[in-house]
Amino acid sequence: MLNKETHFHIVGLGLMGGSIAMGLKKHGFTVTAMDIDPNAIEYALQHHLIDEGSTQENAFLQNADFIISGLYPSVLLEWINKYASEFKPGALITDVTGVKAQIIEPVQALLPETVEFVGSHPMAGRETSGVQFSDCKMFKPANYIIVPTEKNTEEGIRKIHEFAELLNFRHISVLSIEEHDQMIAFLSQLTHVIAVTLMNTHDNTHLVEYTGDSFRDLTRIAKINEHLWTELFLLNKDNLLQEINVFQNELTHFKQVLEKEDIDEMKRLFVQSTIRRKQFDRKGN
Amino acid sequence: MLNKETHFHIVGLGLMGGSIAMGLKKHGFTVTAMDIDPNAIEYALQHHLIDEGSTQENAFLQNADFIISGLYPSVLLEWINKYASEFKPGALITDVTGVKAQIIEPVQALLPETVEFVGSHPMAGRETSGVQFSDCKMFKPANYIIVPTEKNTEEGIRKIHEFAELLNFRHISVLSIEEHDQMIAFLSQLTHVIAVTLMNTHDNTHLVEYTGDSFRDLTRIAKINEHLWTELFLLNKDNLLQEINVFQNELTHFKQVLEKEDIDEMKRLFVQSTIRRKQFDRKGN
Repeated sequence: MLNKETHFHIVGLGLMGGSIAMGLKKHGFTVTAMDIDPNAIEYALQHHLIDEGSTQENAFLQNADFIISGLYPSVLLEWINKYASEFKPGALITDVTGVKAQIIEPVQALLPETVEFVGSHPMAGRETSGVQFSDCKMFKPANYIIVPTEKNTEEGIRKIHEFAELLNFRHISVLSIEEHDQMIAFLSQLTHVIAVTLMNTHDNTHLVEYTGDSFRDLTRIAKINEHLWTELFLLNKDNLLQEINVFQNELTHFKQVLEKEDIDEMKRLFVQSTIRRKQFDRKGN
Repeated sequence: MLNKETHFHIVGLGLMGGSIAMGLKKHGFTVTAMDIDPNAIEYALQHHLIDEGSTQENAFLQNADFIISGLYPSVLLEWINKYASEFKPGALITDVTGVKAQIIEPVQALLPETVEFVGSHPMAGRETSGVQFSDCKMFKPANYIIVPTEKNTEEGIRKIHEFAELLNFRHISVLSIEEHDQMIAFLSQLTHVIAVTLMNTHDNTHLVEYTGDSFRDLTRIAKINEHLWTELFLLNKDNLLQEINVFQNELTHFKQVLEKEDIDEMKRLFVQSTIRRKQFDRKGN
């Protein structure tokens, strides 16, 4: 069980790390953090998001019970590789990475028997990045996905669940690595590819005056962090290519139907999309 | 000039016709309406959206000075064809149709010299349809596009402009038929095709639990009136096919870049989409 003696340590103090720190501090836990940027640490200290902070990469590892990585995927792998032997025996580690196959198994392979890594994915975010935008309220409407492997213990998985509850996530679920990465390829990565592609289709900025909600809705996520998303796409490349192909085939089907003026099939497609989308309705959208 | 003697007549009393009636009544104008559905007329009378109504297709034509068609495109052409000789000399007609080439010139060709048709497109709408959802407040954030041809008079165009001002449209502009239909093919029709296609790509309803804002944003407009949009797409088929092709080429480019793991080009595409999308920002999105 997590208790007031549990020492949480956050590695990488960006929007996600800072928001998690804020959520934990509200419950009175001891929270430390490491970030190579002294300004991030300084900000978090001043705003009481953490108790102590350091820019030294392996700071607090000997004492931390529960470590949350807010690092970029590539950086996480390097960091674990470098400091695998320095964790406190019995420590539990989790992450926030949006893809799992290329992260969880490599990380688990690097760690000693005494340290457990349970992959997880808080499906929350903002268009902004940086610790100064931290806000633990962003977890409230969001999903939290735990992605265990056979290397994980029931105790470890239970603690991660408890952690997500502490942060007030709306819905906590468990998926296998394959289920998670396929789901993310479709729901999140394909949608970002479409938004970016639509925005890049023409130099369309002269159309601002005529733009209504439809175009704005479809392109909101075309504002995208090029470093993070390039990593995430490459780490889930096969699933994402598969989803792009399926979408392209469906689009080609629509194009052919329009070319042939197959009115019945056009209407069938519209009715089907309408019925399906209604199941995704929340109040107001 | 429009004045208190101007008799407005609305043909087809759905969401758009009803909302226009409401906006005009607020200014104290005389507003009549025709709809083949007696319930629509009854509703509009009870809610004081109109002064008089009829289910007779050519009702009020001898007296109406300013006629607004809220009919479906195919129905508008039939209706004009049938009653072209019954309009009051000097009458001005406009419409609300979302495509223009296949509407304006055929309608103008059917009308006698004494009656002027100026095509226009109020870019407002709701996911719902029917006169009972009428709300003239929906015009306030919306664009109004006037699409004149060489057959139109300065006086006629000016009156349409005045009409759009009365309804409180945010921005009123003038486009040629070609400019309008190309713009609509990209900003509105292509976005609907993408949303419908994304919704039809998989039977994805088991993913509801994991769905975040990105997917909901991209598919909101996949709830679509299959009768109206089938007509609109077919009436702008060539422009829409062209836009789908350009989008598909851009998507294929992205897929190839991902396949090759061309990190520099991926980042360039993300930076470009981010910069462009920022120009479309309104407060909050």
